[in-house]
Amino acid sequence: METERRLSDGRNEAGDTPLKRRLFEIIFLSDTPGGRAFDVCLIVAILVSVGAIMLDSVESVNRQYAHVLDAVEWGFTLLFSAEYAARLWCVRRPATYARSFFGIVDLLSVAPTYLAFFFPATTNVLVVRILRILRLFRILKLARYVGEADTLLTALRQSRRKITVFLYAVFTIVVIFGALMYLIEGEDAGFTSIPRGVYWAIVTLTTVGYGDIAPQTPVGQGLSSIIMVMGYGIIAVPTGIYATELREVLSTQRARRACPECGISGHEADARFCRRCGGALARHGTTS
Amino acid sequence: METERRLSDGRNEAGDTPLKRRLFEIIFLSDTPGGRAFDVCLIVAILVSVGAIMLDSVESVNRQYAHVLDAVEWGFTLLFSAEYAARLWCVRRPATYARSFFGIVDLLSVAPTYLAFFFPATTNVLVVRILRILRLFRILKLARYVGEADTLLTALRQSRRKITVFLYAVFTIVVIFGALMYLIEGEDAGFTSIPRGVYWAIVTLTTVGYGDIAPQTPVGQGLSSIIMVMGYGIIAVPTGIYATELREVLSTQRARRACPECGISGHEADARFCRRCGGALARHGTTS
Amino acid sequence: METERRLSDGRNEAGDTPLKRRLFEIIFLSDTPGGRAFDVCLIVAILVSVGAIMLDSVESVNRQYAHVLDAVEWGFTLLFSAEYAARLWCVRRPATYARSFFGIVDLLSVAPTYLAFFFPATTNVLVVRILRILRLFRILKLARYVGEADTLLTALRQSRRKITVFLYAVFTIVVIFGALMYLIEGEDAGFTSIPRGVYWAIVTLTTVGYGDIAPQTPVGQGLSSIIMVMGYGIIAVPTGIYATELREVLSTQRARRACPECGISGHEADARFCRRCGGALARHGTTS
Amino acid sequence: METERRLSDGRNEAGDTPLKRRLFEIIFLSDTPGGRAFDVCLIVAILVSVGAIMLDSVESVNRQYAHVLDAVEWGFTLLFSAEYAARLWCVRRPATYARSFFGIVDLLSVAPTYLAFFFPATTNVLVVRILRILRLFRILKLARYVGEADTLLTALRQSRRKITVFLYAVFTIVVIFGALMYLIEGEDAGFTSIPRGVYWAIVTLTTVGYGDIAPQTPVGQGLSSIIMVMGYGIIAVPTGIYATELREVLSTQRARRACPECGISGHEADARFCRRCGGALARHGTTS
Repeated sequence: METERRLSDGRNEAGDTPLKRRLFEIIFLSDTPGGRAFDVCLIVAILVSVGAIMLDSVESVNRQYAHVLDAVEWGFTLLFSAEYAARLWCVRRPATYARSFFGIVDLLSVAPTYLAFFFPATTNVLVVRILRILRLFRILKLARYVGEADTLLTALRQSRRKITVFLYAVFTIVVIFGALMYLIEGEDAGFTSIPRGVYWAIVTLTTVGYGDIAPQTPVGQGLSSIIMVMGYGIIAVPTGIYATELREVLSTQRARRACPECGISGHEADARFCRRCGGALARHGTTS
Repeated sequence: METERRLSDGRNEAGDTPLKRRLFEIIFLSDTPGGRAFDVCLIVAILVSVGAIMLDSVESVNRQYAHVLDAVEWGFTLLFSAEYAARLWCVRRPATYARSFFGIVDLLSVAPTYLAFFFPATTNVLVVRILRILRLFRILKLARYVGEADTLLTALRQSRRKITVFLYAVFTIVVIFGALMYLIEGEDAGFTSIPRGVYWAIVTLTTVGYGDIAPQTPVGQGLSSIIMVMGYGIIAVPTGIYATELREVLSTQRARRACPECGISGHEADARFCRRCGGALARHGTTS
Repeated sequence: METERRLSDGRNEAGDTPLKRRLFEIIFLSDTPGGRAFDVCLIVAILVSVGAIMLDSVESVNRQYAHVLDAVEWGFTLLFSAEYAARLWCVRRPATYARSFFGIVDLLSVAPTYLAFFFPATTNVLVVRILRILRLFRILKLARYVGEADTLLTALRQSRRKITVFLYAVFTIVVIFGALMYLIEGEDAGFTSIPRGVYWAIVTLTTVGYGDIAPQTPVGQGLSSIIMVMGYGIIAVPTGIYATELREVLSTQRARRACPECGISGHEADARFCRRCGGALARHGTTS
Repeated sequence: METERRLSDGRNEAGDTPLKRRLFEIIFLSDTPGGRAFDVCLIVAILVSVGAIMLDSVESVNRQYAHVLDAVEWGFTLLFSAEYAARLWCVRRPATYARSFFGIVDLLSVAPTYLAFFFPATTNVLVVRILRILRLFRILKLARYVGEADTLLTALRQSRRKITVFLYAVFTIVVIFGALMYLIEGEDAGFTSIPRGVYWAIVTLTTVGYGDIAPQTPVGQGLSSIIMVMGYGIIAVPTGIYATELREVLSTQRARRACPECGISGHEADARFCRRCGGALARHGTTS
C-alpha cells in the first residue's frame, strides 16, 4: 500500500512520455474508466487462472483436458508476464516496485510456470507438484483490490500483544491437556504419543472435533469435557480483544479526519465530503 | 418493506369500495383485530404446509400417507392462491405488488404445485423433485412478519466492505492451505485433488470438522493445527466488525428519533411515546 | 427472584413465632452464619444427589452398588422433603411459595422418588426411566444461588426480538439448504429425506459437524462450503446483538444507582457504599 | 507478578555484593542487554526442552534417539537447576521466592528429572510416565515473559460472577439434555448411561461434534438440533460479557494513568511519555 502510494506520487513528474503516463494511469490507478476496466479484467483473469490450476489437480479432469488447461495456464502466464513488464516499465523506480510486496507477488505469479518448463514431468514429481502449487499464490495479487484492509489490520496489529498472551495460554493448555490425555487414554484410543495428544487437544479446544481421535475412558471423557467448555468459553477472549481494538481504531480515524474547510471532525468512514460545508475530505485511511 | 409501505399509503384514497378497503386492512395491516387474526392464521398455515412438504420426502411417511399429504398440499395451495388473488385485487397498483419481493414469493409459493400437475411423476424424477423443493421457498412468506430485521440488515450492509475483506482473507487461506495439504498428505488421507484440499480447509477453518478427510502425517497434523488456531482466532474479526457496526446503527437511530413535541432525542428503540412529554414518536426504523 | 423478595419482606411482621422467624432466616436468607451454612449444605446435597442419579444409570455401577445408591437417593429425598416442608411452614403465604418457580422445583425434586415407589421396576420400564430422569431436574434448585443472573437475563430479554429475527434467518437457511442437498446428494450420502437434510444443515451451520452425514459429490461439497462460511460468519450476529444489549443494560443499571446521601451515580456494579461519601447504596439489581 | 515486583524493589538495598546485584539484574530484570540476552536464552531453552520431552514420547523417535534425548533432558535439567539456585541466591528473601508461583514452577521444572533417577524404568510404568509428564509443566516458566496478561486477567476476574452464571446454565442444559437423549436414543446409538449422554451433550453444545456418539432417531435428531442452535447462540453470552468487561478495564486503566507533569490522562496503553508535555508516564499496569 505504502509503495503504491509512493509510486503514484511520481506520476506527474516531468520526463515521462505520454504513453508511459497513460499506461501508469491504467495499471496503477482505478479512477479512470480505463483503469477500472483493467482492474476488472485482471481480477477475472486471476480468479479464472486459479480455478484452472485447482481443476488441473482433479485426476478425471486432468486426464481429459490436460492440453486445454496447459494452454490456459500458458495464456495467463503470458498475460501476467506482460502485466509485470508493463508495471516495471511505467513506474518511476522499477527497483522499488520489484522489491515491494506486490512486485514479488507479481513475479511469483509467473515464475513457477517458466521454471516448470525446465523441469519436465519426468524429472521429479515433488518438484513439479511444488511448482504447480506455487502458481496458486497468484491469488495474493487480488490483495491489491481489497479496500478497508488497513483498518482491520491496524486493529489486529494493536491487539498483537494481547493475542500473543492468548496464544500462549492456548499453547500451555493444549500441551498440558494433551500430555494428560496421553497418560490417561493410552494407545487404544489413538493417543500414541504426546504430540498426538497435543494435536487432539488443539482439535478439541478449537471446537473443530474431527473425531478421528476421541477419548474412550470415563476419566478421559471427563477431562475432555473440561477442555471443551474451556475452548467454548475462551473464544470470547480474542473476540473481546479484537472488538475493543477495532472500535478504538475506528473512533481514532474518525476523530482525525477533520474537514480542511470548516474544521469539524467525526465524519463517517465512507464520507468523501464534509457533512457541514461540503468541502472535499482527505481519503479515508491516508493518515493511518 | 418499502413496497408494503408505499402500498399502504394509498389505502385512504377515493375510489376504493368499502369491501376492498376492509380486505386491504385485514391482509396488509396488522393493527386491527381482523388483521392480527389473519396474520396468525397465515403464519400457522405456512409452517404447517412447510412441515407437510418436508414429511412428504420421508419414504416411510410417503408410502403410508401420500394421499393425505397430497390433499393437504392442494388445500394450502388453494388457500395461498386465494391470498395471492386477494392481495392482487385489493392493492392499488397490482403490477407493483406483483413485481415486489413479496409478490414474487407469494407467486412462487403456489406455482410449483400447479406446474407439478402438468408434470406427472412418470415424466422426469428430477423435475418433480425440483418442483417439490421449490414449494419449500414459501417459507420466505414469513419474512413479512419479521420485525427489527431492518436494524440488523443495515448493520450488515454497513459492514459489507469489511466483511468482503474478511472473506477474501478466508478464501486465500483455504486455497493456500488446501493446496499445501494436497502436497503433504496425498491421496491416502483423502486429499485426492486441490479442490478437495480446499474443501477440507474450509471444513477445518470454520471449525465444523466432519472428520471424513483428516490429516494422517505429523507434518499434515502440524499444518492443520495452525489452520485450526487461525480459524478459532479469526472468528473474532467478523464478530468485532458486526458488533461495532450494530452499536453505530443503534446509536444513530436513537439520535435521529427526536420527539416532534419537545425535540429531545435518545429514545429507547421500542419507545412509542416521548419519555419527557409523552408525545407520540415516529415509528422506529421509518427514517432508515 | 421476585417471589423470594416478596416473601422476605414479610419476615418482621407480627405473629411469627421466634422459631419460625429463625428458621426463615436460616432457609431463605444468606446474610447470617446459619443461613450461609444451610446454603452450602444444600448446594453440596444437590450436587451429590445429582451425581448419584447419574451414576445409577451406568450399568456396571448399578449392578454393584444399586442398594447403596437407592439408600442415598432416599436419604436425599427425605432431606429435600424436610426442606420443602420447612419452607412451606415458615413462609407467610405458603400457597404463593408453592406456586412460585422455586416452589414447583422443590416439589419436583422429591415427587418422582415417591411416585417411583408406587411404580415398581416390574410395571413399565419407560415410566421408571422417566421418573428417574425427572429427579435430575432438582439441579434447578441451584438456580436460587446464582447471582447476577438478572443482568444477563435482562440483556437476553431485550435482545429477544433481534434474536427471533436471527433464528428465523437460521431456520430459513437450514430448510432451503437442507432441501437442496437432499436434491443434489441423494440417498447414498445419507440425505434420505428433507428433514434429514435439514438436520445435516443444522449440524453444519452451527459448526458442530458430526460427520455422520457428509456430502460426497463436488457440487454438494461446494454448497456445503457456502453454508459453512455462512455459519462461521453469522455467529457474529447474536454475539454482536448480545454484547450491545449487555452494555446497554449495565450502563442503565449504573446510571440508576444514585447514592441516597449525595446523589452521585455511576457506581461500580459490586459497590456497596458510595465512592464519594460512603453512604450505603441500594442493592444492585433491585430496581430492575 | 506481585512477588517479582516486591523482590525487585529490594535490589538497591545495602549489603548486596556487586556480583549478587549484577546477577539479580541479569536474571530478574529485562531492561539491560545482559538481562534481555538471558531472557531470550531461557525462552529458547524452555521451548527446546518441552519439544524434546514431547518427541521422547513418540515411539519411533524414542527407539532411535533415546540416548540423545536423555542427554538433552539432563543438560536442560542442570541448566534450570543452576538458574533456580542462582535465583534463590541473589534474591533478598529466598523463602518468599521459593513459595511464590514462579518459585514453585522453577522447582517443578527440575524435580521430576531427579526423582525419575530414583525410579528406574523397571519399577512402575505409571510413575515413570507421570514424572515424564510433570516435566512438561516447565512450560509455565514462560508465563514470566507474557506481558499484558494483567489486563486480560483483570477483565476475566471482573466477569467471574457472570461467567459462573453462564457455566451453571451450561451445566444445567447438558445434564437435562443428556438425560433426555439417554431416555430417547437408548444404547444402540451409544447413549449407554446418563453420564455418557451428558458427555455427548457437552460435545454438541460446545460445537465440537466428534461424531463418535450421534443421535439416530428422528426425535433424538430434533432434540439435538435444539441443543445445537442453543450452543451456537449462547456462545454470544461469554463473548458479550468479556468484551464488555475488557472495555471497562481498559478505559479505567487509561483514565488512571495521569501525566505526573501536566496532569492530563487518557494516554494510549503503550504510551511511555505524555502526549502533551513529553513527561515520562508510570508503567502501564502498575496501578492495577
